[in-house]
Amino acid sequence: MADGRNVLKILPLGGLGEIGMNMTLYGCGDDWIAVDAGVQFCDATQVGAEMVLPDLDLLAEYRGRLKALIITHGHEDHVGAVPHVMAACPVPVYAPAFVVELLRIKGQEYPPESRPQMHVVAPGDRLDFGEIGVEFVRVTHSIPDSHSLVLRTPVGTVVHTGDFKIDPEPADGRKFDAATFSRLGDEGVRLLLSDSTNAHVAGRTRPDRDVLRGLERVLLDAPDRVIVSLFASNVYRVSELARIADRHRRRVALVGRSLNVYLEAARRAGLVPPLPDFVEPSQVDKVPGRDLLVICTGSQAEGRSALCRASRQDHPDLRIRQGDRVVLSSRIIPGNERPIHRMMNDLARLGARIIHERMAPIHGSGHAQRDELMTMIELTRPRTFVPIHGEFSFLEAHAEMAGQAGVHEVRVVENGQTLEVSADETFVGERIQLRNHYVDGPIVGDWDELRLDERKRIGWTGVVAARLIAEWGKKRWRVDLEVQSVGCPTGGGSVLDDAAAYAAEQVASLPREASRAQVEETLSASLRAFFRRRIDRKPSVLAFVEVRGD
Amino acid sequence: MADGRNVLKILPLGGLGEIGMNMTLYGCGDDWIAVDAGVQFCDATQVGAEMVLPDLDLLAEYRGRLKALIITHGHEDHVGAVPHVMAACPVPVYAPAFVVELLRIKGQEYPPESRPQMHVVAPGDRLDFGEIGVEFVRVTHSIPDSHSLVLRTPVGTVVHTGDFKIDPEPADGRKFDAATFSRLGDEGVRLLLSDSTNAHVAGRTRPDRDVLRGLERVLLDAPDRVIVSLFASNVYRVSELARIADRHRRRVALVGRSLNVYLEAARRAGLVPPLPDFVEPSQVDKVPGRDLLVICTGSQAEGRSALCRASRQDHPDLRIRQGDRVVLSSRIIPGNERPIHRMMNDLARLGARIIHERMAPIHGSGHAQRDELMTMIELTRPRTFVPIHGEFSFLEAHAEMAGQAGVHEVRVVENGQTLEVSADETFVGERIQLRNHYVDGPIVGDWDELRLDERKRIGWTGVVAARLIAEWGKKRWRVDLEVQSVGCPTGGGSVLDDAAAYAAEQVASLPREASRAQVEETLSASLRAFFRRRIDRKPSVLAFVEVRGD
Repeated sequence: MADGRNVLKILPLGGLGEIGMNMTLYGCGDDWIAVDAGVQFCDATQVGAEMVLPDLDLLAEYRGRLKALIITHGHEDHVGAVPHVMAACPVPVYAPAFVVELLRIKGQEYPPESRPQMHVVAPGDRLDFGEIGVEFVRVTHSIPDSHSLVLRTPVGTVVHTGDFKIDPEPADGRKFDAATFSRLGDEGVRLLLSDSTNAHVAGRTRPDRDVLRGLERVLLDAPDRVIVSLFASNVYRVSELARIADRHRRRVALVGRSLNVYLEAARRAGLVPPLPDFVEPSQVDKVPGRDLLVICTGSQAEGRSALCRASRQDHPDLRIRQGDRVVLSSRIIPGNERPIHRMMNDLARLGARIIHERMAPIHGSGHAQRDELMTMIELTRPRTFVPIHGEFSFLEAHAEMAGQAGVHEVRVVENGQTLEVSADETFVGERIQLRNHYVDGPIVGDWDELRLDERKRIGWTGVVAARLIAEWGKKRWRVDLEVQSVGCPTGGGSVLDDAAAYAAEQVASLPREASRAQVEETLSASLRAFFRRRIDRKPSVLAFVEVRGD
Repeated sequence: MADGRNVLKILPLGGLGEIGMNMTLYGCGDDWIAVDAGVQFCDATQVGAEMVLPDLDLLAEYRGRLKALIITHGHEDHVGAVPHVMAACPVPVYAPAFVVELLRIKGQEYPPESRPQMHVVAPGDRLDFGEIGVEFVRVTHSIPDSHSLVLRTPVGTVVHTGDFKIDPEPADGRKFDAATFSRLGDEGVRLLLSDSTNAHVAGRTRPDRDVLRGLERVLLDAPDRVIVSLFASNVYRVSELARIADRHRRRVALVGRSLNVYLEAARRAGLVPPLPDFVEPSQVDKVPGRDLLVICTGSQAEGRSALCRASRQDHPDLRIRQGDRVVLSSRIIPGNERPIHRMMNDLARLGARIIHERMAPIHGSGHAQRDELMTMIELTRPRTFVPIHGEFSFLEAHAEMAGQAGVHEVRVVENGQTLEVSADETFVGERIQLRNHYVDGPIVGDWDELRLDERKRIGWTGVVAARLIAEWGKKRWRVDLEVQSVGCPTGGGSVLDDAAAYAAEQVASLPREASRAQVEETLSASLRAFFRRRIDRKPSVLAFVEVRGD
């Protein structure tokens, strides 16, 4: 390999192969930058933890070399890990104005040492980190102030798209900067790394304009109250909805704390027009339904969200009633179907009519579909293409598309796999074993520390605890055994007694020379064998063994 | 209420409010029939059980009154509970030929007392069960030999649709009998109960003809091997695919035992044309990829299915290789997204290219969408409408549609809620508390018996077991305490020691008069409090307490 400065190294720590937790390191010699620092939320199938973070231990090894953390946009899977990253490897953060304001508001909850030093960056600004220069290019997405990055490096120009769609008429009027991408393509793009979230979906995304028209239709048709749940980060949909409601003489209430957080960040960044005064959540019941639009959190049926609490009749201000039209202006994130369906059923039982995206055009994705992804490739005409931000099969689908589009060189890598990019070649380098970190309440640790395997297992098998005292009688062991369990089927009630009787007999039959360890092993093994035969499960066994006498 | 024979009672035991486990009782005086007997499969979010069955205890109360079990079609959510129902309330089974053959094959695995006595029924046959007469009407669905039921009762004609779609050109040529539904509408339909699975989806289903054309396109375009996974019950898609493959000079292998079960049942019922010989699974690797189509199970990434095992390189015959085109000719059943995505990623890593329904027209639903549901209402012109077969919000969406179509009377009920239908009125009767039964390996029991709440909880919190011996010393209790855990985060390793030290101190400080119960309560409570503070979780505590001495 050529010397350090003639090679750009790329190390994805998250986002490639699995969706979420986006973070990529770019390095040239000793000059390194990190792009994005996101979290991944655990769904109902990942019992025991709440969030997943990139490998913080590995990141700490880059102290001294890492010069900056660059943020493309404000979604949690791109900024959620910022406080943890600051604790592991403190560096200055460079981000668009909206993101800076958002992190300032959220930063009030971080411990002081985790609050980042931040710099606002806008298109046209040029950042320099030794061999790597960074510029922002505006794109459209489902959150304000989203950008792609252009990295100027000794091996050529690299375009890292971040998350994007190509919306011809975005709600906030801030258009996708096709001209700049095209100019970059004219100048020559060494490498394009592009968003693969919807690389397996034909066509193009539904433009904001159509979504808002669909929502306006609902407001017009509804004789009573309308409640729209959506992602709080979809700020311009919130503000446009508020303006539409105003035109149709409905007042607006925002219910759900995060809605105010994102809206306030957007206000401070100067990104939303003045809006009519909102109705306080506590006043929602006082406004006639016909004259009200409620915008709320809960599109993923998150337990503490406004809509989910309302569906359980557990919200102090939002009480669902007959005649409510509830619009789920969002998609179902894979893994959340069951909780969302449960919430929809509960809302319907309370008298609400549900409208969701399979029934009416009231949502559009924020991620480019195949036609738009092809446009990005055609604008930038890269020499080499690397798909990012997607599960493995989406990365492959995107790579295949690039190949068919005639891109010279296509490489598919996953988290932990380094790319080494020279002026002429692109090698897939070593694969590093990453240890993701999990957040479980106040604990942050890796998979083993959080005992996640154990928890998954005992959720299936149950746990048995046993306290045994053994003392040698005249010819065999006298055994006093008590067995308790949690989570084991009782099968009519006698299972524990039968298990104890069986295991006690196995221990009693041991030879006099049996060691304490052998007694314990016999106890545990016989309990497991018993349950295996009786209920086809092997519960975890926690055993306390005391051997008395000589 | 009028006397028994002038009222038709309807009691849904499953399928209304929750999808799956369809079973409805219809009764007039002492003449009762059951329609369908299905199971519901548990997904990854329902830790601990495999399947859910209708309330078998309630069913047993109908012995003597229940005259027959009528089956509309062969899907597991309509027939899967037959052996359990036979054990609770043995009655003769009346079903289409395909279902009878299917249950005969599956029945070889039931205990002898659970094998049903079966009678083949076809459109045109008339069954009489006292006051209730039953006829079958052909419909199109995603499994052969599917029918709606026409119930002739003293209060009028009832149409129970079962599952259906309206496919103008079904793959097996057996058309939806619109003429009969129309004639029934002319004669007068007292009550229509209709399939709400897709009541929230606009438009109509993709016809079989288009799906097959989409699949043929894949076969034509693929330079190498093609593997199509689908539901084994979708027999005519299997047989038509085999015929298409033959036209394009590809041989066909069926990999996955259940494919053969459903195909054999269809053969015995005379429903499939002669097919070319299949390639044995063990010979799959010997046929050049270009000349082979593999049809296999695993569209829902079921752990033991062919495709899922192949994705884990764990299948003796099916080995995924570079160049394979894997077509997922199915939808993603809510709850299965994560396993399916994981399987897709694993297949892609082995070199396969994945094609699924968002990329190409290679699947169509078996359940009518809104336009088709409207057609059913318009053909039958019922006086009263009751939506069935759907989650509550789907039932509501279907009910609203019927109301808008001008149906005189619409009633929405859920499982356990009786309807009492007279000639002129339809009352919603009492709500019975149903106790569904769960299958967990060899154990069948209700929620409490299977300890499912406990298992969900410990999968989240972990379990702590403690063995404590307390003896009064001179001034305080001397405490010997050992603590073990499974599934609790270790937080660096000292958590258990600290927990034991804390709890021991709480017990040691108890007054001399403390009872054994108080010692145990203090032990458990202090352990839980400690974990609550340290890891924000309260694990289940299994405690063994011995108090010695005076």
